[in-house]
Amino acid sequence: MGSSFGRLFRIATWGESHGGGLGVTIDGCPPGLPLSEADIQAELDRRRPGQSRLTTPRDEPDRCEILSGVFEGRTLGTPIAVLVRNEDARPAAYADFAKVYRPSHADFTYQAKYGHRTWMGGGRASARETIGRVAAGAVARKILAVDLPVEVLAWVDRVQDVEADVDLGAVTLEAIEATPVRCPDAQVAARMIERIEKARKDGDSLGGVVRCVARGVPPGLGDPVFDKLDADLAKALMSLPACKGVEVGSGFAGTYLSGATHNDPFYMEGERVRTRTNRSGGIQGGISNGEDIVVAAAFKPTATIGKPQETVDEDGNAVTLKAKGRHDPCVLPRAVPIVEAMVALVLCDHLLRQRAQRGPGGRP
Amino acid sequence: MGSSFGRLFRIATWGESHGGGLGVTIDGCPPGLPLSEADIQAELDRRRPGQSRLTTPRDEPDRCEILSGVFEGRTLGTPIAVLVRNEDARPAAYADFAKVYRPSHADFTYQAKYGHRTWMGGGRASARETIGRVAAGAVARKILAVDLPVEVLAWVDRVQDVEADVDLGAVTLEAIEATPVRCPDAQVAARMIERIEKARKDGDSLGGVVRCVARGVPPGLGDPVFDKLDADLAKALMSLPACKGVEVGSGFAGTYLSGATHNDPFYMEGERVRTRTNRSGGIQGGISNGEDIVVAAAFKPTATIGKPQETVDEDGNAVTLKAKGRHDPCVLPRAVPIVEAMVALVLCDHLLRQRAQRGPGGRP
Amino acid sequence: MGSSFGRLFRIATWGESHGGGLGVTIDGCPPGLPLSEADIQAELDRRRPGQSRLTTPRDEPDRCEILSGVFEGRTLGTPIAVLVRNEDARPAAYADFAKVYRPSHADFTYQAKYGHRTWMGGGRASARETIGRVAAGAVARKILAVDLPVEVLAWVDRVQDVEADVDLGAVTLEAIEATPVRCPDAQVAARMIERIEKARKDGDSLGGVVRCVARGVPPGLGDPVFDKLDADLAKALMSLPACKGVEVGSGFAGTYLSGATHNDPFYMEGERVRTRTNRSGGIQGGISNGEDIVVAAAFKPTATIGKPQETVDEDGNAVTLKAKGRHDPCVLPRAVPIVEAMVALVLCDHLLRQRAQRGPGGRP
Amino acid sequence: MGSSFGRLFRIATWGESHGGGLGVTIDGCPPGLPLSEADIQAELDRRRPGQSRLTTPRDEPDRCEILSGVFEGRTLGTPIAVLVRNEDARPAAYADFAKVYRPSHADFTYQAKYGHRTWMGGGRASARETIGRVAAGAVARKILAVDLPVEVLAWVDRVQDVEADVDLGAVTLEAIEATPVRCPDAQVAARMIERIEKARKDGDSLGGVVRCVARGVPPGLGDPVFDKLDADLAKALMSLPACKGVEVGSGFAGTYLSGATHNDPFYMEGERVRTRTNRSGGIQGGISNGEDIVVAAAFKPTATIGKPQETVDEDGNAVTLKAKGRHDPCVLPRAVPIVEAMVALVLCDHLLRQRAQRGPGGRP
Repeated sequence: MGSSFGRLFRIATWGESHGGGLGVTIDGCPPGLPLSEADIQAELDRRRPGQSRLTTPRDEPDRCEILSGVFEGRTLGTPIAVLVRNEDARPAAYADFAKVYRPSHADFTYQAKYGHRTWMGGGRASARETIGRVAAGAVARKILAVDLPVEVLAWVDRVQDVEADVDLGAVTLEAIEATPVRCPDAQVAARMIERIEKARKDGDSLGGVVRCVARGVPPGLGDPVFDKLDADLAKALMSLPACKGVEVGSGFAGTYLSGATHNDPFYMEGERVRTRTNRSGGIQGGISNGEDIVVAAAFKPTATIGKPQETVDEDGNAVTLKAKGRHDPCVLPRAVPIVEAMVALVLCDHLLRQRAQRGPGGRP
Repeated sequence: MGSSFGRLFRIATWGESHGGGLGVTIDGCPPGLPLSEADIQAELDRRRPGQSRLTTPRDEPDRCEILSGVFEGRTLGTPIAVLVRNEDARPAAYADFAKVYRPSHADFTYQAKYGHRTWMGGGRASARETIGRVAAGAVARKILAVDLPVEVLAWVDRVQDVEADVDLGAVTLEAIEATPVRCPDAQVAARMIERIEKARKDGDSLGGVVRCVARGVPPGLGDPVFDKLDADLAKALMSLPACKGVEVGSGFAGTYLSGATHNDPFYMEGERVRTRTNRSGGIQGGISNGEDIVVAAAFKPTATIGKPQETVDEDGNAVTLKAKGRHDPCVLPRAVPIVEAMVALVLCDHLLRQRAQRGPGGRP
Repeated sequence: MGSSFGRLFRIATWGESHGGGLGVTIDGCPPGLPLSEADIQAELDRRRPGQSRLTTPRDEPDRCEILSGVFEGRTLGTPIAVLVRNEDARPAAYADFAKVYRPSHADFTYQAKYGHRTWMGGGRASARETIGRVAAGAVARKILAVDLPVEVLAWVDRVQDVEADVDLGAVTLEAIEATPVRCPDAQVAARMIERIEKARKDGDSLGGVVRCVARGVPPGLGDPVFDKLDADLAKALMSLPACKGVEVGSGFAGTYLSGATHNDPFYMEGERVRTRTNRSGGIQGGISNGEDIVVAAAFKPTATIGKPQETVDEDGNAVTLKAKGRHDPCVLPRAVPIVEAMVALVLCDHLLRQRAQRGPGGRP
Repeated sequence: MGSSFGRLFRIATWGESHGGGLGVTIDGCPPGLPLSEADIQAELDRRRPGQSRLTTPRDEPDRCEILSGVFEGRTLGTPIAVLVRNEDARPAAYADFAKVYRPSHADFTYQAKYGHRTWMGGGRASARETIGRVAAGAVARKILAVDLPVEVLAWVDRVQDVEADVDLGAVTLEAIEATPVRCPDAQVAARMIERIEKARKDGDSLGGVVRCVARGVPPGLGDPVFDKLDADLAKALMSLPACKGVEVGSGFAGTYLSGATHNDPFYMEGERVRTRTNRSGGIQGGISNGEDIVVAAAFKPTATIGKPQETVDEDGNAVTLKAKGRHDPCVLPRAVPIVEAMVALVLCDHLLRQRAQRGPGGRP
């Protein structure tokens, strides 16, 4: 259970890090949308390993194949199935610690839950699972771009205590993609890279924060009371591997203010109702208010490290683990397109929901 | 859409702050569970207004009636419907600003989404909606208590910058309920109360953090990959009014550590696999590992304040708003039982899921 | 589980035949729809007992109260909760056979499933549960009437072997409501009434077929491949108490034809694609084609009869049962508004779905 | 939307008759179940085309590949993805009538719904879509066989007016598979084959009834009130291509009886509560009672025929269609494993549900 997401733009991912492949089925994509494998490949290329020294050296081309749902270059309205084969799998690298519970990984919990697990890679808990999310996110982004248009941009906002200074309203994809660390603040990016390089050399790993802004979201997306837009975004982001915290708008920092300083005053900009500040992060009462949607996700330091670690194996023996698998010393740069994908998926789902909820005669 | 929550222990809430009443329907409660209105009333009394000077003076007894699903003191396995009538509604207090968009409230977004809203109280966005959640949470807690047993405890961990020092392993319900602010650190509680009293006098409001621990949760609850236990908890908490951030385990603070210092080493405690630290917050790969589940929610300062505020009305006129409604200067003390309810609902849902996912022959 | 229905126009019913009451929550009703208790009451009055000698003498006014979701005469877009109190409950009538399994009732299966059941009336298996369905159906019918408009009409087509001859294209509500048996063929209606009266006197009961036509349904409603319009209609009807069979269009009779005689040829009527015959029942490939939707449901003879019956009790003793409860010798006349409600619910759900599935820019 | 089925044993199918392939993802399969491609292939071989002269000559090996969810021969508890490539696709055969609406096919309704469709084969409305269902059904059957065990058997009960006489309690898989028409009544089977051969020569087609029995289903499966076991079975069967009617137990025939003759008297067989007759078809109040589950599905004559037919094209021109595609003169023999698959899927889903609904402590 639990491998599908969304209510009207509904995706279901499948696949392990080792095995025949991974993929996603998208049910609910409107018909007539221009879509090609290249659209999806572009996003997969942003998340695939081996892009720079900052990421795992596992060399996966992650070529996607659209198996159904597209005809003559346009979506049919029926399920879109996307397949990516696993190619550079090296199970032998995992054989040595097949029975060992890697600390802060999911080995023990999968064993506890299922009583049977694959020791080759992380199985379903591997970050490779996010391939399906990114593929589906690419489709969601096309829908958002055609219909509204909405732009979704994420970046690495902080690595450990190295923090960027980013103008939410001005940040661009170009600035983000300008450095391998995907931080649009060039000076801070250099320091982040340095820090990550050092962690790699030390056999250690780092975490931090990815922030994301969605521009052009119209007012009215999001459903009271459980499926609030921010609640669905929180679930979307917290479901990512290594995510330990989520914020919307002012987040935790906002709790240090008082109501008089925190509230966002309304004013009119021509015919449009605007807020002077955006501590709400574009969401009020769980529904978008037309301002930029702003969310952030905290990613813990990668659990896989090169240093020796104390742990136990399936038989209850104390073991010292020294990882040999290929891994990222810092997942944040590759998490950027994944965060964007999740935000796009949530927005797309709520866009379709909102269409269904129009008043009599299809109004307003 | 969006008023139901959970997959197997599925609740649907309904009702506005003004009108016939509010309530919840619970579908999926196992049969044979001893349940009375008193069980539910006890939790409703913890969240109802008028408990102390710290909370809104609205005087609602919030008496619950079980309309179905219970027979001769035990659940039938069929839907449990719970009704609470609105009694101390004073719509007149809202008439003056019926057309005004209150800053950082949901007035504007509901109007944008639906084109029709009730100006009496916050409608569905009112914190009174949480009555249904707390009622359902009381049932969830009984299931958890009978079957495992699991104990779920929340408390006010921080008000603005006044922060408690709480031993997660030792905190008790008695210590939490000892003060009206529901902070188990007695000395800090006094300072919190002082701070809230001052905000009330100033016509201002405060936010902060509620933390929650769930003890006794067995390993194996939570589903990869979207319905991770932490993802569902994040959604549950972020769906609460005024919540702007959610953390699991080490949360945002954990991102300042490196992997070598952040990972939780495994060791054996007799037959049981334990972790020496609990930065994972009891959840690894989205599945419980048997350690205490630890989550926290950031609540912004209450949007309703006594000070005058700049805003606009439905007709686009600039307006100065001075609220007259009854409200809490700080929602956190009343949020405590609501947070507990949401955590219990998620755990109960995943407990039932896990039962369905046993291997052949009902094993393991 | 299992007490909710629909995906976008989602209803959840609750309540037993005895106890505080019954009701329904509707989540997904568009905002701005004019709605009053009188709209719902009109349909409830058609299904309530005590309408004529043909139905159970249980005298329930079945007064409905809208508890939420409507403000100033129009829907808010938030959940509509409807409550109907049980008033003429007479549990004493059931006390004698509290432990007896009534043949072809749900007493034994509820006991087997839940290990705990109410012996007062049929509990959740009582036909009183359909109150919530009819109330929700009344709302669905208003949506369909405002937006398209669609007309949904059902009638008693056959009682045992007494079969009506009804022109599907011409039948009217007036003709249906003209007789207490709700058969628009006046002559056959008289024979049906006679037959039912005789069964009542004999302490016996009868079954038959209710047929339903929905006019004005636009092409395009229904989703491949599991949520076909006919598949959802089949589930909706088969979920009714006493229903044992469902047909769409030519149904079982159509299987005696060959393809050359069964196929519906297409032709143009001005700009509109029509079919010369309607053996498809208005649905092809699970999607409406613009012709009248035609479905039928077979209802078995009422399980409760006055004649003595062989059975067993909870303790495994052989028992002879002679029912004393109040019951309908033939459920079909009262099933008519219930069938209409179910068809309306399915159509309304698929109408909202279809809105969400429009192509780029909201087209076609 | 609409391409997934089941709540706990949840399948999602995808793929068109032409294109990269078809498949299914199964989410919710318990871990540790022995499963191989051979298990699935065995069922696919029963439904694949080209088995005999009675079926379409399209020659598809329909080789399945398990892409995920199985490790070292046992299920992981994570999604099982199964892929079958299209091989013998001949789009050219369809090019001539690319814009023609084939009578009683889904060409027109797909065009009306989506505004864009594939003219190559029936797209998603093709019977090839059932490959995914049969693959998933094979897994469901393994679960049912391991855990209970349940046996699900279907057969061709009637072709046009040629009707078999089958003893529901004694029929075997061997008897069913003994003839290519899959009718266990050997003499009637011969007449069915003759009739189908004649239809094929005439360029015509035939329909009929498939009946199915499930033995060994324990009491207690099925959920009141919408997700009744029979309601879910009705949806499952009515969702099959060409299905126009569904019956449970006595079905339409039972409506000719009176209550006194239709009711199933209870009696004790040792410790077990049994019914003397089984007009309920093993389901009472939507819940299994331990007797054999009996359902039937009416399949219309195949819409594709060789005779010329009047119709229109997308541009509104009157057209005479003479089909050249490969097709079955009678779908019923190949529908047998598909009906079994759908029944198994519903039973498996409700088996998992029932596990989740046990009372406190996992009882009863």
